[in-house]
Amino acid sequence: MTEEMKATNITWHDHAITRADRENKNGHGAAVLWFTGLSASGKSCIAQALQMYLFEQGCQSYVLDGDNVRHGLNKDLGFSPADREENIRRIGEVAALFLDAGFIVSTAFISPYQADRDLVRQLCGDRFIEIFVDCPVDVCAQRDPKGLYQKAKEGKIPEFTGISAPYEAPANPEILLQTATHSIEECVTQITAYLRKAGILNA
Amino acid sequence: MTEEMKATNITWHDHAITRADRENKNGHGAAVLWFTGLSASGKSCIAQALQMYLFEQGCQSYVLDGDNVRHGLNKDLGFSPADREENIRRIGEVAALFLDAGFIVSTAFISPYQADRDLVRQLCGDRFIEIFVDCPVDVCAQRDPKGLYQKAKEGKIPEFTGISAPYEAPANPEILLQTATHSIEECVTQITAYLRKAGILNA
Repeated sequence: MTEEMKATNITWHDHAITRADRENKNGHGAAVLWFTGLSASGKSCIAQALQMYLFEQGCQSYVLDGDNVRHGLNKDLGFSPADREENIRRIGEVAALFLDAGFIVSTAFISPYQADRDLVRQLCGDRFIEIFVDCPVDVCAQRDPKGLYQKAKEGKIPEFTGISAPYEAPANPEILLQTATHSIEECVTQITAYLRKAGILNA
Repeated sequence: MTEEMKATNITWHDHAITRADRENKNGHGAAVLWFTGLSASGKSCIAQALQMYLFEQGCQSYVLDGDNVRHGLNKDLGFSPADREENIRRIGEVAALFLDAGFIVSTAFISPYQADRDLVRQLCGDRFIEIFVDCPVDVCAQRDPKGLYQKAKEGKIPEFTGISAPYEAPANPEILLQTATHSIEECVTQITAYLRKAGILNA
């Protein structure tokens, strides 16, 4: 029995399902779309809109954002620099799992530090697509859908990115979205055009 | 622009993609198959064999195990009771994300504590399927593919489940596999029969 188990084990491991197998089955490539930008810049909004488009196209896609990560996997983490780093590290690891599972996975977190984003890039290899959701802080503060900028200005939220904590803009993002002057639909179109050019989506 | 963003945002959120949407598209239900049992009881082996079967059937499935979690997401954790608890908590949260993404996700970890497994069950709701991979410790120690039992008996591995750390067998697992007397193929058949009966897989 022991030998049989071992032998079968080896056999199955020899035939492990690869990302390429999953991509062939799904009919599209896998990728990590890493949205980064200030609060209220439009990250989640665009990621969700993109996901809707991809789903309608028959793609396997998923969005990791504050709603399903900050209150779950990372509920033990706060907003200190160390906790922000661990927050991004874990999200990067989960994104890498979804990548391995054949998904086009979008992450929508401020992720203010270049070093943290670079670590995730190393983890995900050439399927890491950094998307800078660029929007001036005063426009974000004017939108302020959750009233966070107002609270931050009143000193009620410590270490708020763009107000009392730094944001390091990506130096060389694969995609630059300017949400103060472009609609969500235009941003989604810009991303899907990139994905087609990169061969992630069929032309 | 601000108003347009907000309005569009609300629209997209109203049309968020649900697990049911994904299940309809995939043609099968989503589930968390939580394998628990001693080291070398056969958890990973059976989970991988099941995944191969499911993949060939066109299902979306994924396996979380030591290979892709312990060295990634949970590489900061050891084997103390507190770290084991956090290990299982994080795996449970990631499994819940894959469940939400429409997958049949299998987890293959010793997960020795009933309380930790019960927390994951609460997290995943009625799609949590606890699979007890039951195998006597002496049979596991005889298989010992990685030589871990030998090292544990020599005192070289502290807190080794079944030798120097406790294993709490599930009281009421949905599926009971007895790997000392049943082959991997028989175990896979037992699981798929359960999934068909539960409506996760088509009959």
